Amino acid sequence: MTQIGIIGSHGRMGQAIAQAIETAGHTFAGGVDRNGDVMELAVSSDAMVDFSSPQALNANLAAARKAGIPILVGTTGLDQSHHAMIDRAAEDIAILQTGNTSLGVTLLAHLVEEAARRLDDDWDIEIVEMHHRMKVDAPSGTALLLGEAAAKGRHIELTDNTESGRDGHTGKRKTGAIGFAALRGGTIAGDHSVLFAGEQERITLSHSAENRMIFAHGAVKGASWLLDKPAGRYTMAQVLGL
Amino acid sequence: MTQIGIIGSHGRMGQAIAQAIETAGHTFAGGVDRNGDVMELAVSSDAMVDFSSPQALNANLAAARKAGIPILVGTTGLDQSHHAMIDRAAEDIAILQTGNTSLGVTLLAHLVEEAARRLDDDWDIEIVEMHHRMKVDAPSGTALLLGEAAAKGRHIELTDNTESGRDGHTGKRKTGAIGFAALRGGTIAGDHSVLFAGEQERITLSHSAENRMIFAHGAVKGASWLLDKPAGRYTMAQVLGL
Amino acid sequence: MTQIGIIGSHGRMGQAIAQAIETAGHTFAGGVDRNGDVMELAVSSDAMVDFSSPQALNANLAAARKAGIPILVGTTGLDQSHHAMIDRAAEDIAILQTGNTSLGVTLLAHLVEEAARRLDDDWDIEIVEMHHRMKVDAPSGTALLLGEAAAKGRHIELTDNTESGRDGHTGKRKTGAIGFAALRGGTIAGDHSVLFAGEQERITLSHSAENRMIFAHGAVKGASWLLDKPAGRYTMAQVLGL
Amino acid sequence: MTQIGIIGSHGRMGQAIAQAIETAGHTFAGGVDRNGDVMELAVSSDAMVDFSSPQALNANLAAARKAGIPILVGTTGLDQSHHAMIDRAAEDIAILQTGNTSLGVTLLAHLVEEAARRLDDDWDIEIVEMHHRMKVDAPSGTALLLGEAAAKGRHIELTDNTESGRDGHTGKRKTGAIGFAALRGGTIAGDHSVLFAGEQERITLSHSAENRMIFAHGAVKGASWLLDKPAGRYTMAQVLGL
Repeated sequence: MTQIGIIGSHGRMGQAIAQAIETAGHTFAGGVDRNGDVMELAVSSDAMVDFSSPQALNANLAAARKAGIPILVGTTGLDQSHHAMIDRAAEDIAILQTGNTSLGVTLLAHLVEEAARRLDDDWDIEIVEMHHRMKVDAPSGTALLLGEAAAKGRHIELTDNTESGRDGHTGKRKTGAIGFAALRGGTIAGDHSVLFAGEQERITLSHSAENRMIFAHGAVKGASWLLDKPAGRYTMAQVLGL
Repeated sequence: MTQIGIIGSHGRMGQAIAQAIETAGHTFAGGVDRNGDVMELAVSSDAMVDFSSPQALNANLAAARKAGIPILVGTTGLDQSHHAMIDRAAEDIAILQTGNTSLGVTLLAHLVEEAARRLDDDWDIEIVEMHHRMKVDAPSGTALLLGEAAAKGRHIELTDNTESGRDGHTGKRKTGAIGFAALRGGTIAGDHSVLFAGEQERITLSHSAENRMIFAHGAVKGASWLLDKPAGRYTMAQVLGL
Repeated sequence: MTQIGIIGSHGRMGQAIAQAIETAGHTFAGGVDRNGDVMELAVSSDAMVDFSSPQALNANLAAARKAGIPILVGTTGLDQSHHAMIDRAAEDIAILQTGNTSLGVTLLAHLVEEAARRLDDDWDIEIVEMHHRMKVDAPSGTALLLGEAAAKGRHIELTDNTESGRDGHTGKRKTGAIGFAALRGGTIAGDHSVLFAGEQERITLSHSAENRMIFAHGAVKGASWLLDKPAGRYTMAQVLGL
Repeated sequence: MTQIGIIGSHGRMGQAIAQAIETAGHTFAGGVDRNGDVMELAVSSDAMVDFSSPQALNANLAAARKAGIPILVGTTGLDQSHHAMIDRAAEDIAILQTGNTSLGVTLLAHLVEEAARRLDDDWDIEIVEMHHRMKVDAPSGTALLLGEAAAKGRHIELTDNTESGRDGHTGKRKTGAIGFAALRGGTIAGDHSVLFAGEQERITLSHSAENRMIFAHGAVKGASWLLDKPAGRYTMAQVLGL
C-alpha cells in the first residue's frame, strides 16, 4: 500500500486529494498544515504532495530530501528563487512541479502543440474558455498554457501574437495571431476550446472539467508515478508518457 | 407562378436571391441595378426585394407603390429618414423591412427573449459569436440583435448591462450583465450561441449558418409571404408567425 | 423561515435536497424513511418533498392532506393508480408531481416545443444526449421528454415518427422524423441537445447538467413555490410561469 | 506554373478540383472523362488527379507511368486488385492514394490516434457524426476512419470493440468499447467529433467541413506535394509531415 502524505491538507485542494488517494486505492499517510511537523509526515510517507504556499516550499523540500521520498509540488505563485530550490532538491529526489495537474489538460496541450506544428498560419488559432462568475481575470491560466503550446508548435512567441478581448472596430484578423475570448457565468469549473479555422473547415480541440476533483486525481497519479523514478525534475507530460 | 423582381441584382445578395427564387419554385421577374428602370421591373413583378442602397430607396418604394405590389427591403445602413419613407409607403402597400432575413436567426432571437423572460438573473447570459477572418468589428450585428432580445426578455437596457471583450483583471462578473465574446478565423459564415449559465446547469441556444444563401432563402420566403397581405409594415418575426 | 420536510431523506436525492434546502435559506424540517412517522413530519413542516417510493405514496399524501400542507412528488415509477391518488389529494392540497425537477430542462422543453411549432418539417429534428457509462438504457427519459415536446409543437405523434439508433444501411432520412442518438461515457451527469437542421442553417437548443444537485435545487424551488397556492395539481412548467 | 490534369473532370469532385487548382495559383492542364484520351492529358500535365472510377484505374496509371508524372488517386471503391496495381505503378512514379483528401480530417485522425495511445481505457471513446439528410449509411466512412485511428492508438481491433446505434436496453457501457452515433439532417457537409470521457473530465477532438471544396483543396495540395517526390506510394498523412 502506497502511503501518500499531504502538505496543505486543510485547503480546498488538500481535502480533494485526501479523497482522491482513497479512490485510487492508496493510503492517506496524514496531512500537515501551517504549523504541522512536515518532517514527521515525510518519514511516514512513500511520497508527498504539496499544495500549501511558496513560503513553506523550502522546508517541505528539505523534509522530502531528508526522508529520501519523491514530492509533487502543485503550489502556485512560485518565482525564480523557488524554481531554483526545486532544481537543487531534484539532485537528490524525484520532483514533479506543475501548475495544472489535470491529465486531460496536459494531454490537450500536447495535441494543440502537435496540431499547430502541422498546420500553416492560414489556419487561424482561437482559444475560448468559460469559467464560473467569480473568476476575476481573463484569459484563464490554462488558456494561456494552451496558447503557449500553440505558439511553441508554430515556432512563434505568444506575447507578440496575441489578440485578446476583441471589442469595437478591431480591423481584420492579423495573420498568425492567436486569439483569446473569455466567457464567465454560473458555476462552470472550466471549459477550454482551441479552434483551428482554415479554408472552409475547422478543427476544435476541447477540454471540459466537471469539477475540481480532476486536479486531485491528477496529483495522486503524478505522485504515485514518481515512486520508482530516479532523482530529477519531471513534468505532468511525462506522467502521460508524452 | 409568382414573379419576383430584384433591385440590386448584381450584388452578392442579389445573385444569391436569383438562385433562391428558382429553388423556391418561383420565377425571377428580372433585375435592375444602379441605372436600371425600376418602374418597368415593378410592373412585371408580383413582389420585389430590394438589396440595393439607401440612396435608391425612395425611387424603389415609389415604383412598388405605383405598381401596387409588396416589397421586402433588406438594404442596410438606413437612417430615420429612410424609416419614415417606409412608414409612409406602408400606408399603401405591404412592406417588410429587416436587417436579417434568416429565418433561423429570427426564431433564435424569439427563443432567447422567451428564455430570458423566464429565468432570474442568477442565470448569467453570455453571447459568443464566430465569423471569418475578414470581419472588422465585434460583436457582430446579429450578436447585438440577440443581446437586445435577451435584454427585452429581462426588462433591462442592453447598453447599461454589457460586458464585452474581457481581458486582464476584470473582477467578478456583474449580476445581470450580458457578456459578449468574439472569435475570428477562417471562412465561417456566422455562428452564434447564447448561454444561460445557472447553478450547476447551463442552457445554450445556438445558430449556425453554413453560408450566405440562408439570407437569400429568407428574403424569398419573406417576399412571397407578403403577397396576400394588406398594406402595412411587417417584420421577419411575423413571417414565422411569432 | 420555511420548514421543508423530506420523505426519503436517506436516498441520493433526499440527501441532495437537504443540502439544497440550506442553500436556499429555508429550514430542513426533518426527514423520514422507510419506517419513519410521516404524519409527525407533516405536522412540523410548511411543505414536503417526496422522493421515496410508489408504495409509500398513499400514506404520504394522506399525511400532507391531514396536515393541510403542499407536497412535491418526485418519485418515479408511478402508474395510473398513483396518478389517480394524486388527483384526489389535489382536491384538498397543492401538489406538484414531476419526473424531472430541473428548471433548465423544463424551460428547454418549452423552447423546443415553441421552435418545433414555428418551423416546417423541412427542418429536421435530431436529439442527442450523453450520459455516464453506467446508464443502461437509451434514449434517456429526458431525451424522450424533449422528443415529446418537439412532437407536440409539430402536431405529430412521437411514437410514429422516431428514428433511433441508426446503424448500417439506413436509407435517406424520413421527412418529419425525430431522430435520437445516445452517447455513453465517463461520469457525465447529463447533456442534451435538440438540433433543428434546415437548408444551410442549424438551430441547436442544449442543456448541460454539471451534477445531480440541480434536481435538488429544482425540487426545493418547486416546493416553496407551492406554499401559497390553492389546492390543485401543478407542473414544473408553472413554477417557471410557462 | 504547375500544370495539373483532372481525370473525371465532369464529376462533382472534378469540377471542384478545377476551381481549387485556380485558387492555389496552379494551371488547369485539362480534363478527360469516360471517353477522353488520358495519355494526351498526361503528356501535357506535371501531375494528375484521378476521381474517375475503379474500372479506369489501370489505364490511368499506365498513362501517368508512360509520361513519368505523379498521380493522386482519390477514386473510391477500390479492391485489393486495384491496390496491387497502385503498388506496381509506384515502383516507377510517385502515387498518393487516399479515401479522404481533407487535410483537417487527416490531421484529426493523427491527433485521435495520439490521444488514444496516451489515455487508459478508463477514458471512454465515443464518435459522433452529423451529415445531410440524404446520406444512406451510418456511421460515415470518416467516422470509421477515426475509429480505426483510435483503435490503432489503443492497440485493439475496431471490429471487436464497436458499440454502434444504441437503442433500448443496452446495459452498461463495455470497458474499452468505441461508440458510434449518427445524426442526420439538413444540408450538413460533415461534422465529426471524437470524445474521450474520463472521470469528471472530457476531451473532445472535432472537425467540421463547411462544404465539399475542402476535399478539392486537399487533392490539389496532395498533387503538388508529389511533384518532387521519388517513385513510391504516399499518404495524406505524409503531405502534412505527420
